[in-house]
Amino acid sequence: MDELSLVRLIRRRAGKSAGLVLGIGDDCAIFRPRAAEDLLFTTDQMIEGVHFRSDASAVEVGHRALARSLSDIAAMGGEPRFCLVSLATPLKRATKWVDEFYRGLLGLARRTKTALAGGDLAHASSIYCDVIVCGALPRGKALRRDGARPGDDIYVSGRLGEPWDRRIQPRLKLGQSLRGRATACMDLSDGLSLDLHRLCLESGVAAEVDRVPVATGSTLERALHDGEDYELLFTLPNGSTAPKGTSRIGSVVRGRKGIVRFQGKLLPPAGYNHFLPKTK
Amino acid sequence: MDELSLVRLIRRRAGKSAGLVLGIGDDCAIFRPRAAEDLLFTTDQMIEGVHFRSDASAVEVGHRALARSLSDIAAMGGEPRFCLVSLATPLKRATKWVDEFYRGLLGLARRTKTALAGGDLAHASSIYCDVIVCGALPRGKALRRDGARPGDDIYVSGRLGEPWDRRIQPRLKLGQSLRGRATACMDLSDGLSLDLHRLCLESGVAAEVDRVPVATGSTLERALHDGEDYELLFTLPNGSTAPKGTSRIGSVVRGRKGIVRFQGKLLPPAGYNHFLPKTK
Repeated sequence: MDELSLVRLIRRRAGKSAGLVLGIGDDCAIFRPRAAEDLLFTTDQMIEGVHFRSDASAVEVGHRALARSLSDIAAMGGEPRFCLVSLATPLKRATKWVDEFYRGLLGLARRTKTALAGGDLAHASSIYCDVIVCGALPRGKALRRDGARPGDDIYVSGRLGEPWDRRIQPRLKLGQSLRGRATACMDLSDGLSLDLHRLCLESGVAAEVDRVPVATGSTLERALHDGEDYELLFTLPNGSTAPKGTSRIGSVVRGRKGIVRFQGKLLPPAGYNHFLPKTK
Repeated sequence: MDELSLVRLIRRRAGKSAGLVLGIGDDCAIFRPRAAEDLLFTTDQMIEGVHFRSDASAVEVGHRALARSLSDIAAMGGEPRFCLVSLATPLKRATKWVDEFYRGLLGLARRTKTALAGGDLAHASSIYCDVIVCGALPRGKALRRDGARPGDDIYVSGRLGEPWDRRIQPRLKLGQSLRGRATACMDLSDGLSLDLHRLCLESGVAAEVDRVPVATGSTLERALHDGEDYELLFTLPNGSTAPKGTSRIGSVVRGRKGIVRFQGKLLPPAGYNHFLPKTK
């Protein structure tokens, strides 16, 4: 299949979205924003041998590639509008693999009302993709990382330390329900210890963690440090009611900014860091 | 340098843009659109060994990665607002190479008022990057590929068949000046023969090319089929004045859609196709 035919095939399945004036097929996609909305933008790479194994199912890789970016939209309290997908594959995998990848990606796109607005196709010696998602929400209502205050309670959704090979379900509804309530919010993509450290750095505070909800079959170590949970980490004013499906794990405190303690002991930021080889 | 330090360094140099409420450092960038504007989105990959050689200068790769996406914004008549940059590099090139790449990219970003709003960093066995640009223009004024009509004159900017290693200068001012004048427009990224074929397909027309402006030291063959010119290809109603720095190359005609003739002979779409190995 040549590039034009492949683009035609993808275009037929791309879906529509409120505001998307022109999708796949021109130099750019055209989007007409609504009045009184802010737009959110995020992008996440999925690289063979780094983010997924060469024998991973193309359907799962496609689902996950979009799910990771949707999780960032959820973390800001947004609703997804459209995505752009850049994909590079070896020539010999150009048809079947690409078709299955788009099947996985577009299945999740339909369920979350995310139109495929465009992207870029190329060949490369191994598989690489990058998914950009645009989300929207009422003006000024985005959930940021920098608003946590001493005294706030810290929460996570779901349970942490889940194995890689489950399907990520981006917490879009939860994120939207936290607008105007959470003082800070982010998604857990690099492990609780590193991500909570980042939230505390941005907010200029420290944190005390008392307990974490560990996934069945997982360990406390993995729940604290493993990346790729894609649950939401957020803070609420002290005494708030926990939203359904979430657990209070500790409190925001004054202290040297970025410092996180777990049951009284220093918890070093040991999650996934792309520029430091893992020590274990 | 670890990921947090690298992100801090990039963040300090990222620039500002009208409408960019929140840039690098959170789950998403936040952009507040202006009333009565449409937004444009495009994304382009640059892959080591495919789009550039391993010994290419990092500064040049950074410049080119942004220039290619800006060229798509120019082709729609837009003004750039911000970009997102996804970059994966081998660990051993994580510091110096990345620093020089951003120097090249941010130099062009400053000159074109494109803020760096965010992105994603990862490691990989070879260098990969993907640059997304958001542009804006008055509502309904985007230059599309599908408006060429029989009788229109066909134009290109500059001269075609330039060697790879020059710095691309995206034709932003020209694109903006064509709003409300050009009936169709696109940028030349895969060679005139393939790109004009695509424009004709989208517009449901055919084309007769009489002559093309060949770059000094290049050949007619390269001017017709080589990719990577990044000049604008556009159509104007018959009898329009040629904009400065552009040449009329032929006419839009009725006929089987997508068919392009050069001096009376069929010109097959032989430009760069990522999914067909080049036959030369």
